[in-house]
Amino acid sequence: MTVSQDMLRTNPSPPGYDPEALAACIEACFDCVAACTACADACLGEETVGQLRRCITSDLGCADLCDATGRILSRQAGYHPDLTRAALTACRDACRSCGSECESHADHHEHCRVCAEACRRCEQACEKLLSS
Amino acid sequence: MTVSQDMLRTNPSPPGYDPEALAACIEACFDCVAACTACADACLGEETVGQLRRCITSDLGCADLCDATGRILSRQAGYHPDLTRAALTACRDACRSCGSECESHADHHEHCRVCAEACRRCEQACEKLLSS
Amino acid sequence: MTVSQDMLRTNPSPPGYDPEALAACIEACFDCVAACTACADACLGEETVGQLRRCITSDLGCADLCDATGRILSRQAGYHPDLTRAALTACRDACRSCGSECESHADHHEHCRVCAEACRRCEQACEKLLSS
Amino acid sequence: MTVSQDMLRTNPSPPGYDPEALAACIEACFDCVAACTACADACLGEETVGQLRRCITSDLGCADLCDATGRILSRQAGYHPDLTRAALTACRDACRSCGSECESHADHHEHCRVCAEACRRCEQACEKLLSS
Repeated sequence: MTVSQDMLRTNPSPPGYDPEALAACIEACFDCVAACTACADACLGEETVGQLRRCITSDLGCADLCDATGRILSRQAGYHPDLTRAALTACRDACRSCGSECESHADHHEHCRVCAEACRRCEQACEKLLSS
Repeated sequence: MTVSQDMLRTNPSPPGYDPEALAACIEACFDCVAACTACADACLGEETVGQLRRCITSDLGCADLCDATGRILSRQAGYHPDLTRAALTACRDACRSCGSECESHADHHEHCRVCAEACRRCEQACEKLLSS
Repeated sequence: MTVSQDMLRTNPSPPGYDPEALAACIEACFDCVAACTACADACLGEETVGQLRRCITSDLGCADLCDATGRILSRQAGYHPDLTRAALTACRDACRSCGSECESHADHHEHCRVCAEACRRCEQACEKLLSS
Repeated sequence: MTVSQDMLRTNPSPPGYDPEALAACIEACFDCVAACTACADACLGEETVGQLRRCITSDLGCADLCDATGRILSRQAGYHPDLTRAALTACRDACRSCGSECESHADHHEHCRVCAEACRRCEQACEKLLSS
């Protein structure tokens, strides 16, 4: 059982979404924070950093929105459906945009390939909650 | 001249928005982080905290989205219009929702009144960029 | 292989710490963000919320420092030993303090028990890097 | 009256520090988040980005610690002196380190000069609280 599953199970407030899908999305968000933060840094360390500005900026912004969304999804007390949907929508769109950007460098930089996969998983986890 | 105006003026990359409106929005975002974080804490300290759960959760989420948006708007290198719009839209909606929540407690708690004003300023600054 | 291990393996810059211990600490930091954010919310949802103010504030602060530290540890390009040590020291101390606070409620609230464990793992992972 | 002064004035919990010095430090922290985030981006946009990696990484880490510290200082309910001191110490040290790094580029990049000033103000505001 993961930390997020454990925390949802022991929360006295009922979750706004299916607990399993919600825990998976929280984990996908924080995984994407880790991947995007590290990918921005890996791009910065490349000799071709001058050609990776869009990727770095995209990574940093995606990390920020995933962090905000992971935190918002972790809160069930006094649940706000509209605020949660606003965050999920922005996070899904940011992950889609950043995933595409990273994918375009995946053949040259393995960190972009790993990061694109984390973005895709998070995009899909957000979409699953939004369409439920 | 504010820090954000100064930083935009000295940035080598052209900004994606009118610099004055952009600097005002960045400042409104970080002001709203400060206001919402402090309002969540002030609500937590009230004797009637049990009736302020929705306000606290709303404040915490709004602070998280304003923080992400303030950071994203601060980045002009490798500018991503879609990621920026995703953040601005979520931030505007979160500020609208949190502003309404805080306004409903403004008669009883002055911190909610001050916070509602910060939310409204940020909502309008985001809307101004989105409609430009 | 975890996301953090994968990202460290593919980063062109040499890490400032043993890669395995570093990846474990990054993961412990982000796990602690998830646990502390969720524990603050679970405490807020308890009927006895008025007696859990210290725990909520401790959780929120610990989450903030773990987030900052997880991000800082994810960056190897242009590595700053002093900034990294400052973050690790604060994170270890915050996790120790928050872990003790949560442990004192662990008999009554299972979310505090789960959160205390996440804090202890993160405290130890920070200590391991600091003493290496 | 600034947002942070207003919020401290209307908070039902007594602050752990002199309210004026505390509000000034909260503002210095969030100003430093804005300055460091923007300076990292401005450095990334420079043609000589390959020589500014240390400055970018330093800016990003300093922004993260200032954000965590600004939030922690905004919380008076269930006040934790030790967690607050841990954050203030790390923030002061990060601002000192980042301020020095930025100062070393101030002759070539005006954004580094502006950012170094924001770092110095935040370093001093943290030191003032720590020594009070």
